[in-house]
Amino acid sequence: MAILGGTGYGAGELLRLLTQHPDVDIVSVQSSSQSGNSVSSVHPNLHGILDARFEAEISFEKLRSYDQAFVFSALPHGVSAETLIPLVEKLETEPHIKLIDLSGEFRLQDENLRTEFYPTFKEKGLSFLKFVHGVSELFTGEIRSARLVANPGCFALTSILALAPFCKNSNAEHIAVDGKSGTSGAGRAPNSFFHHPEAHANTRAYKILEHRHEPEIRQALGSAPSLSFVPHVIPASRGIFITAHVLLGEELAKNLDQQTLDAWYRNFYADAPFVRLREESPQIANVIGSNFCDIHVVLRGRVLVAVSASDNLIKGMAGTAIQNMNLMAGIDQTTGLLSPGLRVI
Amino acid sequence: MAILGGTGYGAGELLRLLTQHPDVDIVSVQSSSQSGNSVSSVHPNLHGILDARFEAEISFEKLRSYDQAFVFSALPHGVSAETLIPLVEKLETEPHIKLIDLSGEFRLQDENLRTEFYPTFKEKGLSFLKFVHGVSELFTGEIRSARLVANPGCFALTSILALAPFCKNSNAEHIAVDGKSGTSGAGRAPNSFFHHPEAHANTRAYKILEHRHEPEIRQALGSAPSLSFVPHVIPASRGIFITAHVLLGEELAKNLDQQTLDAWYRNFYADAPFVRLREESPQIANVIGSNFCDIHVVLRGRVLVAVSASDNLIKGMAGTAIQNMNLMAGIDQTTGLLSPGLRVI
Amino acid sequence: MAILGGTGYGAGELLRLLTQHPDVDIVSVQSSSQSGNSVSSVHPNLHGILDARFEAEISFEKLRSYDQAFVFSALPHGVSAETLIPLVEKLETEPHIKLIDLSGEFRLQDENLRTEFYPTFKEKGLSFLKFVHGVSELFTGEIRSARLVANPGCFALTSILALAPFCKNSNAEHIAVDGKSGTSGAGRAPNSFFHHPEAHANTRAYKILEHRHEPEIRQALGSAPSLSFVPHVIPASRGIFITAHVLLGEELAKNLDQQTLDAWYRNFYADAPFVRLREESPQIANVIGSNFCDIHVVLRGRVLVAVSASDNLIKGMAGTAIQNMNLMAGIDQTTGLLSPGLRVI
Amino acid sequence: MAILGGTGYGAGELLRLLTQHPDVDIVSVQSSSQSGNSVSSVHPNLHGILDARFEAEISFEKLRSYDQAFVFSALPHGVSAETLIPLVEKLETEPHIKLIDLSGEFRLQDENLRTEFYPTFKEKGLSFLKFVHGVSELFTGEIRSARLVANPGCFALTSILALAPFCKNSNAEHIAVDGKSGTSGAGRAPNSFFHHPEAHANTRAYKILEHRHEPEIRQALGSAPSLSFVPHVIPASRGIFITAHVLLGEELAKNLDQQTLDAWYRNFYADAPFVRLREESPQIANVIGSNFCDIHVVLRGRVLVAVSASDNLIKGMAGTAIQNMNLMAGIDQTTGLLSPGLRVI
Repeated sequence: MAILGGTGYGAGELLRLLTQHPDVDIVSVQSSSQSGNSVSSVHPNLHGILDARFEAEISFEKLRSYDQAFVFSALPHGVSAETLIPLVEKLETEPHIKLIDLSGEFRLQDENLRTEFYPTFKEKGLSFLKFVHGVSELFTGEIRSARLVANPGCFALTSILALAPFCKNSNAEHIAVDGKSGTSGAGRAPNSFFHHPEAHANTRAYKILEHRHEPEIRQALGSAPSLSFVPHVIPASRGIFITAHVLLGEELAKNLDQQTLDAWYRNFYADAPFVRLREESPQIANVIGSNFCDIHVVLRGRVLVAVSASDNLIKGMAGTAIQNMNLMAGIDQTTGLLSPGLRVI
Repeated sequence: MAILGGTGYGAGELLRLLTQHPDVDIVSVQSSSQSGNSVSSVHPNLHGILDARFEAEISFEKLRSYDQAFVFSALPHGVSAETLIPLVEKLETEPHIKLIDLSGEFRLQDENLRTEFYPTFKEKGLSFLKFVHGVSELFTGEIRSARLVANPGCFALTSILALAPFCKNSNAEHIAVDGKSGTSGAGRAPNSFFHHPEAHANTRAYKILEHRHEPEIRQALGSAPSLSFVPHVIPASRGIFITAHVLLGEELAKNLDQQTLDAWYRNFYADAPFVRLREESPQIANVIGSNFCDIHVVLRGRVLVAVSASDNLIKGMAGTAIQNMNLMAGIDQTTGLLSPGLRVI
Repeated sequence: MAILGGTGYGAGELLRLLTQHPDVDIVSVQSSSQSGNSVSSVHPNLHGILDARFEAEISFEKLRSYDQAFVFSALPHGVSAETLIPLVEKLETEPHIKLIDLSGEFRLQDENLRTEFYPTFKEKGLSFLKFVHGVSELFTGEIRSARLVANPGCFALTSILALAPFCKNSNAEHIAVDGKSGTSGAGRAPNSFFHHPEAHANTRAYKILEHRHEPEIRQALGSAPSLSFVPHVIPASRGIFITAHVLLGEELAKNLDQQTLDAWYRNFYADAPFVRLREESPQIANVIGSNFCDIHVVLRGRVLVAVSASDNLIKGMAGTAIQNMNLMAGIDQTTGLLSPGLRVI
Repeated sequence: MAILGGTGYGAGELLRLLTQHPDVDIVSVQSSSQSGNSVSSVHPNLHGILDARFEAEISFEKLRSYDQAFVFSALPHGVSAETLIPLVEKLETEPHIKLIDLSGEFRLQDENLRTEFYPTFKEKGLSFLKFVHGVSELFTGEIRSARLVANPGCFALTSILALAPFCKNSNAEHIAVDGKSGTSGAGRAPNSFFHHPEAHANTRAYKILEHRHEPEIRQALGSAPSLSFVPHVIPASRGIFITAHVLLGEELAKNLDQQTLDAWYRNFYADAPFVRLREESPQIANVIGSNFCDIHVVLRGRVLVAVSASDNLIKGMAGTAIQNMNLMAGIDQTTGLLSPGLRVI
């Protein structure tokens, strides 16, 4: 497989995980800015493990020697669509290659929403390409047969997994999603908000009620629920914690009990190897370094609270991308992904 | 003034701040477990500043030499009521002494709620004493004339300040309060949840929909709103960040605009020296080390989000206790409290 | 293989790594306190990966069904020797079982030093058993043919690796080793020094010039150098950083240059897959989650500085134990250990 | 007083502390980049406390209305000398104004060393101005009568205080100083080393044996000892911890005992209100937020270890600058500086 945009944190995690994947060769790691330099100079944890150099262009030549090949695009929003639209055209002549995009630009299936939340689309007059939304647990079948997958956003995925079993079975008056993320979600480029002395013991909300992952969550939950989203940065590096505050209608509140609710979740995730239903609150420390998402649900009167935790760079990014690759490749979706998290970090 | 239970973090902050207060003598610092030891052996930041020893009992003798004296009780829940009820009786013969309790046991004004959330009351057959709820910004007048004040909980206070201007002016369909606290809120006693390797990069919810500060928030907001509360521990040591997700009725949503909302907040806090209304999200780092609470409000359709940040051990505890003391003593409420936070921590 | 004392952080890392080892079955996980409980209740990162329960005793029955079996002892100092001495006797009738001890009690080869630094030995009249000191890079041959291995201490190992190439080739006037460790080195039991609000932004030295790892370092470096050691706790959870300040004699200083020094290190570690020589200072973040030790050496006049970094729970503990197991089992020493660290933590 | 270069962390701390100083008016805060903006927009902890705007130039006009005035220069190295040299000339006509420079450029008293370690001096052909080295505890008399003071470096000051009593009384074979600093020492400008996800759980050495504070330490200790210095960045934001490993000559080692050593330190610091001699290792958490430096010394055979801790932005910067101002102004050196640290941070 090959990676476009190989220098960011997401690409680093893809590379780290793929060095452990039994069925994958890392064929080509592209970077415009680092072309010619060793991959381990940018990702020093790979020193002594991955002996490769960044290339200016992906080598399709090399990819052709495989029966099946994957290109992961880990380009930033804004650059991604521009680069991928011509690439998708090119792929018509490379039928054995499939594409998984980790940026946000192809996630929204509604053209208006996409151009609203990713305005470069409109500005640059880019064409609307349909990618399958890569929520492995919800769109498993579509992903299996897809050639183009748009990997979900980290906040979005962790929220969607917390809410999908409820939303499939019922409706809420309103869902207020409170998202807490470590700083690595902002990527590798330094800026003053993430300067260590500023971020080290800090917490703040940002893009209150105007974050791009809100329409993505709504889209995946299907019924277009009344839903609002407020993201926060907490002083961890890795990890996402979602608290979904669900207000039930009076009728529903009378008829729903914890037991039924738990059964909805158990059934929904019966075949999901990376979702762990817990009897108490998840903890970020239990999932960091792993592809698991831990979920817990509590009901009291008209209020239901669903909490979930994942590693934003793994389940929320590179791990899900590999899980989707496994599905698209027709192999066990857990291949190369069953390593436990570090717990003590 | 004197402190009952002088070893905890709240007592440490009281002592730290009171060494800077121009009108206060620290007369007596009580501790059962540390009696005879120097105060700076437990609070090493006071070494070279406060040269005092813990005493087994508060010295009323010494307090009598002042025209006006305050006892702060920083005893843990459970011990507090048991100790304070006989003390209050004793105070009838010490008319110049006033009492500020930092525990939770006297905060709830409704007898049923108090015995439900602080069960030792019932078990021990303790009598119901009425303390004024020490939210300095809301109950200023009552506090000024009170002899007994129950200092508010840290989550409760920061939530109340975020919501009071809205609740005074209007009603919500539902308010979901999402609270995030640093680890110091759990106090000084070590346990495995707060063991550094477990807590250092962790985040979790706890007591979901069953935390004691929920009825306290409702009580202070007056109209007994439909309100739910979920607390979290984030990997900071100090600081509380509150995100109140407010669902408005359709009628209200049509008629309310951001300008009106902002005016409600400005007017409500016109005379509140420690509330700072901000034009963007508060940050814990902007308030740590200070008695300020920073607040910001955003409105979009039927959803209003109020966010607030405070230092849980200062505005959420010792600072508010001193602010209340100032009010009760008839001096400027900011006396000794106007030092800025550290910002870079 | 089986683990004695399966609840601590070292045992947790052993289990985490062994679930990824292609040639190992986890047969029996012993714990006195948790017997009967699921392993994942104590190590929640293993939930969904390792479905086992703690047992009161190791099952030798089950170990007998393997050609070759290993017992790892992760008991605390003090309990370890007492338990292992009878076990070693028992092993005489179980010739296919080998033992790797992760405690400190069998590391020192000199009887006087051992009873000085591990006084329970003397108090309890325990017999002196000789274990091979498990520094995989230095005592490779002895470890390969050993049945009893005493895994090195985390500070000791990281210091030894930084200094061995120099000490093998030359002598110093004095070596001052400055060790910095994350908090997880202190183990799982909570105490006030490691209570999050106390440890979160703190740094301190401890056991200045009287830490047990000092004689262990001296022993491994062979020539019994003039060496002093000061350990510190820094506000990380994982990771050890060693700074060895070496004072050279005047003669040596005149004759040694950086090039020669670098060659000593390159040659010494030519066959060491887990030592990475770096051209700039190592960083803890580059090794956390991995079995690597990164080293860098600088020479200026009479002063040589050797710096090294490792993950205290992996290279400093469980990873080295597995590396030693691989050596003792006659398989490639890197088996199951080549996963990269997380880098962004 | 006035500040040149008012946007950095050091300036922020100066402003924070000076708002608490009873005898100081903040007259003018200069910044080229932020001229016209409110000071609290850059230092948000001052919001509601300091109502001032950055000015393009210091207003000497306003300073003239005071009997005595101070200019603090918190400009970065490189810009500082260039700006201050003409300013010093100007001060000849403003005899009531004194200058305290927080940059490094005027600290070294030897012209060759200064141009070696601060090369812009040479490149720009700047003239050599003599400032008094502002180590308040060592050069108290000179500072009292100085008009130009070069505030010491944070690593340098904390090292000097740890070693001065020993060096005044005796000589060492060699002193290896191991310095550990939080990230705020690097200042406000973001870069990838201090990007939160990279720095959050990291530790590394840097400028090994080539840091500018090494000659500064040597200079202050007077006897030009054999001394080497290795700085490190640890994952705290504030705080410096120094471990000085001192190798004694054999003769001295025979004659020196802990009691004598302790007496040297007690006598040396008998009149130093901000040095606290401790009976165990200092902790950064005990000094953060304060102007104290805590020191502890241990002797064993030929090895003496002196450890010290301070807040790099206060005792290591702004606090010492104010202490020097107090000395130069002829008032009690503790004025405005006796607030305890936060302890729980």
